Amino acid sequence: MSNTIGEKIRVTVFGQSHAPSIGAVIEGLPAGMKIDMERVRAFMARRAPGRDKLSTARKETDEPKIIAGLNEWGETCGAPLCMVIENSDQRSKDYSKLRDNPRPGHADYTAAVKFGGANDIRGGGQFSGRLTAPICFAGAVCMQLLEEKGIRIGAHIASIADVDDERFALPDDEILDRIASHAFPVIDEAAGERMQERILEAKSEGDSVGGVIEVCALNVPAGLGDPMFDGLENSLARAVFGVPAVRGVEFGTGFAAARMRGSEHNDPFYVKDDGTVATRTNHHGGILGGIASGMPVVMRVAIKPTPSISKEQETVSLGKMAGDRLIIEGRHDPCIVHRAVPCIESVMALAIADKIV
Amino acid sequence: MSNTIGEKIRVTVFGQSHAPSIGAVIEGLPAGMKIDMERVRAFMARRAPGRDKLSTARKETDEPKIIAGLNEWGETCGAPLCMVIENSDQRSKDYSKLRDNPRPGHADYTAAVKFGGANDIRGGGQFSGRLTAPICFAGAVCMQLLEEKGIRIGAHIASIADVDDERFALPDDEILDRIASHAFPVIDEAAGERMQERILEAKSEGDSVGGVIEVCALNVPAGLGDPMFDGLENSLARAVFGVPAVRGVEFGTGFAAARMRGSEHNDPFYVKDDGTVATRTNHHGGILGGIASGMPVVMRVAIKPTPSISKEQETVSLGKMAGDRLIIEGRHDPCIVHRAVPCIESVMALAIADKIV
Amino acid sequence: MSNTIGEKIRVTVFGQSHAPSIGAVIEGLPAGMKIDMERVRAFMARRAPGRDKLSTARKETDEPKIIAGLNEWGETCGAPLCMVIENSDQRSKDYSKLRDNPRPGHADYTAAVKFGGANDIRGGGQFSGRLTAPICFAGAVCMQLLEEKGIRIGAHIASIADVDDERFALPDDEILDRIASHAFPVIDEAAGERMQERILEAKSEGDSVGGVIEVCALNVPAGLGDPMFDGLENSLARAVFGVPAVRGVEFGTGFAAARMRGSEHNDPFYVKDDGTVATRTNHHGGILGGIASGMPVVMRVAIKPTPSISKEQETVSLGKMAGDRLIIEGRHDPCIVHRAVPCIESVMALAIADKIV
Amino acid sequence: MSNTIGEKIRVTVFGQSHAPSIGAVIEGLPAGMKIDMERVRAFMARRAPGRDKLSTARKETDEPKIIAGLNEWGETCGAPLCMVIENSDQRSKDYSKLRDNPRPGHADYTAAVKFGGANDIRGGGQFSGRLTAPICFAGAVCMQLLEEKGIRIGAHIASIADVDDERFALPDDEILDRIASHAFPVIDEAAGERMQERILEAKSEGDSVGGVIEVCALNVPAGLGDPMFDGLENSLARAVFGVPAVRGVEFGTGFAAARMRGSEHNDPFYVKDDGTVATRTNHHGGILGGIASGMPVVMRVAIKPTPSISKEQETVSLGKMAGDRLIIEGRHDPCIVHRAVPCIESVMALAIADKIV
Repeated sequence: MSNTIGEKIRVTVFGQSHAPSIGAVIEGLPAGMKIDMERVRAFMARRAPGRDKLSTARKETDEPKIIAGLNEWGETCGAPLCMVIENSDQRSKDYSKLRDNPRPGHADYTAAVKFGGANDIRGGGQFSGRLTAPICFAGAVCMQLLEEKGIRIGAHIASIADVDDERFALPDDEILDRIASHAFPVIDEAAGERMQERILEAKSEGDSVGGVIEVCALNVPAGLGDPMFDGLENSLARAVFGVPAVRGVEFGTGFAAARMRGSEHNDPFYVKDDGTVATRTNHHGGILGGIASGMPVVMRVAIKPTPSISKEQETVSLGKMAGDRLIIEGRHDPCIVHRAVPCIESVMALAIADKIV
Repeated sequence: MSNTIGEKIRVTVFGQSHAPSIGAVIEGLPAGMKIDMERVRAFMARRAPGRDKLSTARKETDEPKIIAGLNEWGETCGAPLCMVIENSDQRSKDYSKLRDNPRPGHADYTAAVKFGGANDIRGGGQFSGRLTAPICFAGAVCMQLLEEKGIRIGAHIASIADVDDERFALPDDEILDRIASHAFPVIDEAAGERMQERILEAKSEGDSVGGVIEVCALNVPAGLGDPMFDGLENSLARAVFGVPAVRGVEFGTGFAAARMRGSEHNDPFYVKDDGTVATRTNHHGGILGGIASGMPVVMRVAIKPTPSISKEQETVSLGKMAGDRLIIEGRHDPCIVHRAVPCIESVMALAIADKIV
Repeated sequence: MSNTIGEKIRVTVFGQSHAPSIGAVIEGLPAGMKIDMERVRAFMARRAPGRDKLSTARKETDEPKIIAGLNEWGETCGAPLCMVIENSDQRSKDYSKLRDNPRPGHADYTAAVKFGGANDIRGGGQFSGRLTAPICFAGAVCMQLLEEKGIRIGAHIASIADVDDERFALPDDEILDRIASHAFPVIDEAAGERMQERILEAKSEGDSVGGVIEVCALNVPAGLGDPMFDGLENSLARAVFGVPAVRGVEFGTGFAAARMRGSEHNDPFYVKDDGTVATRTNHHGGILGGIASGMPVVMRVAIKPTPSISKEQETVSLGKMAGDRLIIEGRHDPCIVHRAVPCIESVMALAIADKIV
Repeated sequence: MSNTIGEKIRVTVFGQSHAPSIGAVIEGLPAGMKIDMERVRAFMARRAPGRDKLSTARKETDEPKIIAGLNEWGETCGAPLCMVIENSDQRSKDYSKLRDNPRPGHADYTAAVKFGGANDIRGGGQFSGRLTAPICFAGAVCMQLLEEKGIRIGAHIASIADVDDERFALPDDEILDRIASHAFPVIDEAAGERMQERILEAKSEGDSVGGVIEVCALNVPAGLGDPMFDGLENSLARAVFGVPAVRGVEFGTGFAAARMRGSEHNDPFYVKDDGTVATRTNHHGGILGGIASGMPVVMRVAIKPTPSISKEQETVSLGKMAGDRLIIEGRHDPCIVHRAVPCIESVMALAIADKIV
C-alpha cells in the first residue's frame, strides 16, 4: 500500500472521493519558502470540473487549506506541509447496488477483491479522479521551487480521439507561453476545435473519448537522474501511473523509435554558440542513460477514454455471481484529457523537484 | 544513485562492463528455496550474445557464481543472495579518445557531466547492456518463485523495424509454450523471418534497428498491486526503464486506447464456467486501478535502435569544445530486441514477485 | 527530513505546536478494521496534560478527527487513514525574543541553524511534546491490531530521579493488569509515592526531574524481526528516539549486561510444559540476533529532565552574538516521564505491528 | 529482511561466516573519490582476531577485494562499489548437532524458527561477528569521506566487566590521538591493564566478559540530522544494533540524565572566542532535537559478554523437544569489546556520512 512518492521531496496523498477530506503531506520542502497561494489556486483550477460544456456540471470548490508546516510568517518551516481540501457534498445513500455491480473499466472489482469488500465505493473512493487535486497542489508547489532554478514545465493535448495536435519538436519558452494561455491547451488551434467536437459527439452519444498529453520540462540541468532504477524515466514513469486512466508513457520519440534506424534516431551532438553541448534533434527526449542531457525533457502519456459512460454495459452481480446489466447514472466527463493536463505537469514537477533539491 | 529495486524482494545490481565483476544482491527471498541453476543458466543464455548471425561475435561466458546466501544444502538461508559474474576479458587500453567524443545516443556525455568525468567509460561502464545479465539472473530466480504460485511469464517480439508480429489477445499456456520454443520468439513465424531480414539489412549497412517486446504474466491473482504509486503499472514501469534502450511502456491496449471510445475500451465483466469473474476482452491488460484483475497482465515495451552503429556520426570533442566526427569501432549488435526479451520477462518477474512473497 | 516511520504500516506525523493542526497519516492498515475510538481516546488521555497536580495546567482537548481512510460503515477501507487534532489556542504574539535566546536543552538553536531561522518557534514548533499525541493515536490503533494477534503491551515508570520501581523480571498479564489500573503506573506503589514527592519537590524549586520507562510486549511470536538492520532492536531504537527527551535505550539486561559474565548472562533454554521452547531467565529481553524468541520483549528508555525550568539560565543572544540570561515564562511540566509512558507503549506497538501485518 | 542501511550512502552487507564470501555493496559514494586502501586495511585489522592473547587464535586474512565501482584510474566512478572478502577455510562437516542444540545467548534458535530450519548454521551464519568486517570496510571508506569535511571519529573502551575507563568529557583531537595509538584503546592506561586482567581471568575460567564502548565524532556541523525519525540518534541507534552483541545505546549523559535535575542537565550556551555558539558542558552529547549542535557527538554502547563460553550450559534438543546439555567446542573470544571498537566507529561514520554527502 503506498500513497507516497519521492525520496527527498516526499508526497503522501490521502483521501477518498466522499471522505470528509482529501489532501497531501509534503516532506522535504526547503525551509523559508513562501508559497504563492494565488498561483497554486489558479493552477488547481485548471483541473477542476464544471468550467465549460466539455466537463461534468459537478462543482468542486477544492479550496486547499494548509494546516501544518508554516511558521508565523507563512513560510515553510522545515516541518511537513499538510494540505487538506474539505469535501462539501458527502451525501449518505445506499451503496449496495454499486457494490454489487462493478463498473467496467473501473477499479470497483479489483478493489473489492483486494480489500475484502471494505473498499470505499462512494464516488470511486480512493480511485477517484478527485485524488488528483492534492497531486496538483503538490505539483504547483514544486513548480514554484523549480522556477527558482529556471526550470519550466508545460503540457499540451497531443491528441483526442483521432485528432492530433502538432508535436513538440524543440520546445521553448515561446511555445510554452502560447499553450499556457489556452483553456484547452493545443499548439494547432484548428486541431483543438476538432478535438472539442469529438468530445461533444461522444457526449451526445453517452460515450467518451481518450487522448494523449505531451509534456516538457525546459532547462533541466544536464546530469540529473540516478540510473539504473531511479533515472529520470524510471521516476517519471512510476509517478505518472499514479494518475488514474494513464495507459502508457513514452519519452522523446518513444514507440516510434522502435521503427527507426539507429542512424536516424541518434541525436548528433554539437557545440552551441554559448559554448554548451546540445543535440541537433531531440529523439532522446532530453534523457540519455536515465540522466538529463540538458535538452528539453519530453514525455507523452496515453489517457484512456473515461470509463464512466451512460450506455448500458455488461457486468456481473457479485452477490448472485451471475451476469448482469448496468447503467451508470449521474453526470460524467465525456473526456478527462484536458483536465488531466495539469496533473501530468504536476507529476513531471514532482519527479524533477525530488532530484534537484 | 540507486541500483536497487523492490521492497520485499530487493535487488541491487552492481558492476560495469569492464569491472572485475558484475552481479547482484537479492534480499528477501524465502528461506529454504532450492534454486535450479541449470534453468537459471538456460534462461540467462537467451540474452547472451554471439549465439547467431544476428548478434555481435563477442563471447561472454556469463557464468553466475553464488558467493553468499546459501546454506550447506545449497538452499537459500534467509541471508542476502549474492551472485557474481567475473569479467574475463578486461583489456587495458587508452580510453582518452572515448572520453573526448561522446557517442550519440549513449550515456557517455550525460555520465561525464553527472560524475565529473570520473564515470567508467570502458565498454559503456555501468550503462552497458552487460548489466542486464544480473537482472536476468534475478528474474530467473523470481520466475522459479512465481512458478510455485502458478504464475507464468512469457514474451515475444511484437515488432522489429516495420515488421509486426501478431499481438497477444488473450494469451494462454499454449501460446507461451509456442513462443518459448523459439530462439527468436514470435507468434507469426513468417513475420519473424522478415524481422531477421531487416536486422541483416541494417547490419550490412552499418546501421541498426529497434522494436517492441510484448510480455504477459498469466495467473497473477486478482487483488495484487498497491495504488496509488505502487500499483502494478507504477512498479513495472519503474523497473522496465532500468533496461537500457527502453523508450516507452504501455499496458493492455496502451496508446491505442487513446483513440478508442469508452464503450469500446471498457472490458465487460462476466462469470466464467468455473465461477470466477473475468472480462470478455483485455483492453485493460489485467490491471484496473493499479490492481490485478486476474486477467493476463500485458505490457509492451519500445526498444530503440542500438545506438552503436558503424556509420560516421557527428559529435563533439569535449576537450576542444568543438564539433568532431566519430566512427565507432568494434563489433556491435545491429539489433538488441531479441536479446532483450528475457530482460523484459525478468523485469516483469521481479515486479510481481516483489508484491507476492 | 523524515517524519515517516515503518515499512508495512507507515506513519507520517505532521504539525507544530501552534500550527492549525497536528496529525498523522497511517498507510498499510488492513482494510475492514473497526477502530474503537473510545479506547483510542482513553489511551490518548493518558498523555494529555492537566490531569493532576504533577503536570502543567495547560488544557489540551486533543480530540482526534479521522478525515480520511474509512468507508461508509466506519471501517478502514485500504486508503491511508488521516487523523487531525485541531489546535484551539493559537495566539499571535511577538516571538522575536524567543528567536533571539535559544533555551538550553531545547532544539531552538539547532533548528534555527538547520532551517536558516525559518523554523516554527511557537511553542517549540515541530519539536513540541504535543507531536506525541499523533504518535499515541497511531500507537492506540496498532495496539488494537496487535490485540487480535494476542500481543499485549504495557509500560511502567522504572525510576524517577533517584527512586527506583521494581524491574520487570518475567512480566505476565497479571502484572500488566496491575500497572494498567494506575494513573501513575508503577509496580511498587510506595516507590510511586516517593517518585511523586520528587516531582513536587522539583516543581517547588522551579526545577525538573527525569526518569526511566520500562515497557514490555507479551506474546510476540518467535521469529519476528529482520536482521541485520531491521531487527527488533534496530526498529524499536530508531522509533523510540522519535519521542522527545529520550536519551538512551536498552534491551533486556541492557547496560548492566556489560558487567556480567557470559555464564550469568546467557539464558538457558528449556522446554515448557506446553511443549514450547522458552528461556529460564530473560536477560536477552526477548530478542536474540534481532529476532523475537517468544519471551517478553523488554525495553528500557531514559527520559531526561524536562529542559523547560523556571530558574534563570545562561544562554546567548543570537542577534548580538553575545552571552545573555534567560528566564522561561509560563507553566511547565516538572516531569514528563509519566506522561511519556503511553508514548513509549505506542512506539513499541508501531514497531511490532510494522513487522507483523 | 534488511541488510541495507542508509538513504544517500546505502550499504548492503552480505555473506555468512562460512559462505564462499562476505562483502558489501555501497551505493551513493561521490564519484572521483580515491580510496586509500592501505588505511582501509589498517583500520580493518583492528577488528581482526588473532592479534594478541586476548582473542581467539583463529586467523582471518580478511583481504578486501573491490570487484566493482572503480574506473580505470582506481577512483569511484558513480556505480555501486562492491567489495568481497573470500572465506578461505570453509570446511564441510556435520552440522546436525549444532542444529539440534541451540546455543544460549546466540541466534541459533530464533533463526531456526524464522527461517524454518534453513538458516545457515555454520559458524553462526549471517549472525557471525565476521559480518562486521564488511561494516568496517564501509566505515573506513566513509571515514575518508568525512575527513575531507574535517570530521573525525574515535572510540575507546569505556568499561570491561567492573573496570571503568575515564569518560569523554569534552573530547578533542588530542585525546583522539592518544587513544588512536593504542592497540587496546583507553584513556586511563592503568584501567586498561585491569580490563585485560579481567579478560584473562574470564578466559582461564572458560567464561567471558562484556563492556561498554564510548565513541565520539568531532566537528559534525550544527544542523545535521532529520527529526522526527531520522534524527542523529534515530539513525545512529538503528545502525548500532546491526553490530552483534549490542544491548543498549545512550547519547551524552544518557541513562544518568534520568537521575539529574533539569538545572544540572541543561547545557548553558555561550559564545566562543571564535564567535561561534557552543555549550559549556555536553550533557546533550552534541545532539538537540535530533540535530547536531556542533559540540562533539558522544554515544555509548553496551556490549554483552560473548555468549560462546566453554562451560557446560543448559539447552534443549530441538529434535527430541527435551532438555539437553551443551559444551561449545573450539576457541572463542573471552571478550569482543576491544575488537568491536572499530565496528562502533564505523557505524558512527556510516550514519554521519549518510546525512552529509
